[in-house]
Amino acid sequence: MSNYLRIRQILQTKPLGEQVEIRGWLRTRRDSKGEFSFLEINDGSCLANLQVIADRSLPNYPTEVLKLTTGCSIRVAGKIAASPGQGQAVELQAKTIEVYGWAPAESYPLQKKRHSFEFLRKIAHLRPRTNSMGAVARVRSALAFAVHQFFREQDFFLVHTPIITTSDCEGAGEMFTVTALDLENLPRQNGRVAFEKDFFGRAANLTVSGQLEAEIYALALGKVYTFGPTFRAENSNTSRHLAEFWMIEPEMSFCDLAEDMALAEKFLKYLVGYALDHCADELDLFGRFIEKDLPRRLANVLDHDFIRITYTEAVKFLQDAGRAFEFPVHWGTDLQSEHERYLSEEVFKRPVIVYNYPKTIKPFYMRVNDDQQTVAAMDILFPGIGEIIGGSQREERYEQLALRISEAGLNQADYDWYLDLRRFGSAPHAGFGMGFERFMQFVTGMANIREVIPFPRTPGSALF
Amino acid sequence: MSNYLRIRQILQTKPLGEQVEIRGWLRTRRDSKGEFSFLEINDGSCLANLQVIADRSLPNYPTEVLKLTTGCSIRVAGKIAASPGQGQAVELQAKTIEVYGWAPAESYPLQKKRHSFEFLRKIAHLRPRTNSMGAVARVRSALAFAVHQFFREQDFFLVHTPIITTSDCEGAGEMFTVTALDLENLPRQNGRVAFEKDFFGRAANLTVSGQLEAEIYALALGKVYTFGPTFRAENSNTSRHLAEFWMIEPEMSFCDLAEDMALAEKFLKYLVGYALDHCADELDLFGRFIEKDLPRRLANVLDHDFIRITYTEAVKFLQDAGRAFEFPVHWGTDLQSEHERYLSEEVFKRPVIVYNYPKTIKPFYMRVNDDQQTVAAMDILFPGIGEIIGGSQREERYEQLALRISEAGLNQADYDWYLDLRRFGSAPHAGFGMGFERFMQFVTGMANIREVIPFPRTPGSALF
Repeated sequence: MSNYLRIRQILQTKPLGEQVEIRGWLRTRRDSKGEFSFLEINDGSCLANLQVIADRSLPNYPTEVLKLTTGCSIRVAGKIAASPGQGQAVELQAKTIEVYGWAPAESYPLQKKRHSFEFLRKIAHLRPRTNSMGAVARVRSALAFAVHQFFREQDFFLVHTPIITTSDCEGAGEMFTVTALDLENLPRQNGRVAFEKDFFGRAANLTVSGQLEAEIYALALGKVYTFGPTFRAENSNTSRHLAEFWMIEPEMSFCDLAEDMALAEKFLKYLVGYALDHCADELDLFGRFIEKDLPRRLANVLDHDFIRITYTEAVKFLQDAGRAFEFPVHWGTDLQSEHERYLSEEVFKRPVIVYNYPKTIKPFYMRVNDDQQTVAAMDILFPGIGEIIGGSQREERYEQLALRISEAGLNQADYDWYLDLRRFGSAPHAGFGMGFERFMQFVTGMANIREVIPFPRTPGSALF
Repeated sequence: MSNYLRIRQILQTKPLGEQVEIRGWLRTRRDSKGEFSFLEINDGSCLANLQVIADRSLPNYPTEVLKLTTGCSIRVAGKIAASPGQGQAVELQAKTIEVYGWAPAESYPLQKKRHSFEFLRKIAHLRPRTNSMGAVARVRSALAFAVHQFFREQDFFLVHTPIITTSDCEGAGEMFTVTALDLENLPRQNGRVAFEKDFFGRAANLTVSGQLEAEIYALALGKVYTFGPTFRAENSNTSRHLAEFWMIEPEMSFCDLAEDMALAEKFLKYLVGYALDHCADELDLFGRFIEKDLPRRLANVLDHDFIRITYTEAVKFLQDAGRAFEFPVHWGTDLQSEHERYLSEEVFKRPVIVYNYPKTIKPFYMRVNDDQQTVAAMDILFPGIGEIIGGSQREERYEQLALRISEAGLNQADYDWYLDLRRFGSAPHAGFGMGFERFMQFVTGMANIREVIPFPRTPGSALF
């Protein structure tokens, strides 16, 4: 009977004296004077390796063990013992070692040295085998679970909003087209592409947000959230933009802007706390090798109430800053990254929520405040990263919404279903959106967003 | 201080004598001889309504309460009391009632009567407000959470595989094209569309499966799963096909077909058990109004070990059936729905796993068995629904995989990265895929798959 255990479990429970089996990949081999070898094995279950002692008495010691190189896949059975060496409490004394797969050192790209992230991106099918990228993957998985757990604890329902959409949210231009037409032989009618012959009988796009569809469900189930992929066909080749990214969008009926902000703050603190509780080794690695300031940044989110200031107050702070911003600030302009960072990093040195933005710079669906000049919008700004969440109370009043749709130059008929939500059983409601990768950048300290998603899609690049 | 509670909480905790507030939508109003009215309120938190007693002494009783109709959105504050009436333990004696939004009976499409599912599909932005569709949404949310919880308990990591892909899995033809090119003015070169000028510098599609990419992560983290949208541009206008659906695909290193089957059985039982434990009211509704046989079907999954038979044995059962199938069976043909249902519904009357299928009818990545005729594939067949899961042990041997790629007529260069997984640190590994909507159909008893996804995408239809 094999007692196959994962390394995380062995390191946690330290089953001294027990016969166990592990399966994983060799990270390094050190030979001690021809007497035995130390093998560092990683099985992906955690950052740490398990040290295996391979004695030369093993039948395949000269023929196989001494030929093991970084990346080989093996099975080791043996006994767990206290480790006399430094750096580990237990080690595995091998009784048998079986090789599943070799990794020829002359061709295997991942040798025991530090590789640049740029290089690793080119071998994205191998990069999760590195310490850093494996750690990112585990943190990403833990935080995705934390998202679901948070909302479930808060009595929300998950809604899968559509990926392929025929409603053009906000009239956003930068959408990908989805089509089953043969591009080499596009059907045409009256000189234009005949989308009526396409799969859905009309033109279709990849979604840029599930918010409007989530509102449908918020007005039926009360509190819902989405967590799915969203897309932008923007030619933004920066360290903060992806053409495909995952977004979390809660939407709550019977909720105003203050409650929306409170939930968002609670959510962010929950996620940071979850990462600290469940991914301590990984965060430690990031703090040592990726971003020295990471522990302080994370603590800073947990330890303080977020500052709340209106857009009008924010503009005053910026105008009183006594410095020349690249983009001059006056009431009515949108805040740029430099402004957001000044507020959160220099004025308050902690997360800041800016709310009540000018109506003219925000989308039609945000609720107009009584001053008729601002809308009940909010952005959460994090030191070191800028905007991490954007949200608003939605316009729940039919007449005002219809007016805003017209003012925005949109076609009211296209939003008939959205207006129906205000015709029938309308209720105050609010929500927000968070780009999951932006948050992953914050928690890992990764400078480039391409490192925090398994398969980044950017202008000119979509491997696999 | 308002003590706003959701109705599910009130019905669970029965806070007798307490002042509470609820917010929700009116389902029905009954007036009792001008003395008071019964209001049935639903807030989406659960299937059940809370009964509100609105006395005529309320200041807005004649002006508002008596005008409330199905679908109105209201806030009620009052005291929880034991209910003398039948059908509920507690009721809310209203002190104040505030109307958030009306729902004019002459135009609101959802009146108190049963609507056909076909009709509801046309008003998909309102259908989650019905009992049946609200119940489906809650079950869907619960089961999505159960998926994550199951795999987390089993030590898996979630991996977000790409939605936009440039690798053409299995050379599957029926994929949607994703493009940022202007279809009205396609750039051309040498008489063909110049995809090199497209967003990603090459042609791109919507994924049909995350399996191959999940294998990348399985060979780094050990055990991973995906849960994301997948797409088929197939012109299948049936009650079981969607152009956009959600798929769950676990992938495990150091795992063979027997372990793969064991995990899949455990997974299915976990999900059914979770639904029974967490969605009792909803399943009860489905059992009464959608599929009378539902309770027995669900119990049947939990109460028995799944049958395991080889494909070869399955063919014998079918040949010995003494009946004329529409599609005649002989060794080497793929099993059709009629065959799968015969096996699970008539021969065994419980879930059946058929494994070791002929090599010739299965994709290139499945592991060839020692007989050289079959591959280590498996399908799980459910009574009443047919195939619910398909999986296999993957070909981990480089030479065999390269051969299979060639035999399949695929271009080896396109699979270089996939072959790399076998060049470097290869290990036996296996996985399976489950269409989430197919499982939702099983658990809810819904005959048409369009009822179990919020926004169905089918040939000719993609509302919103």
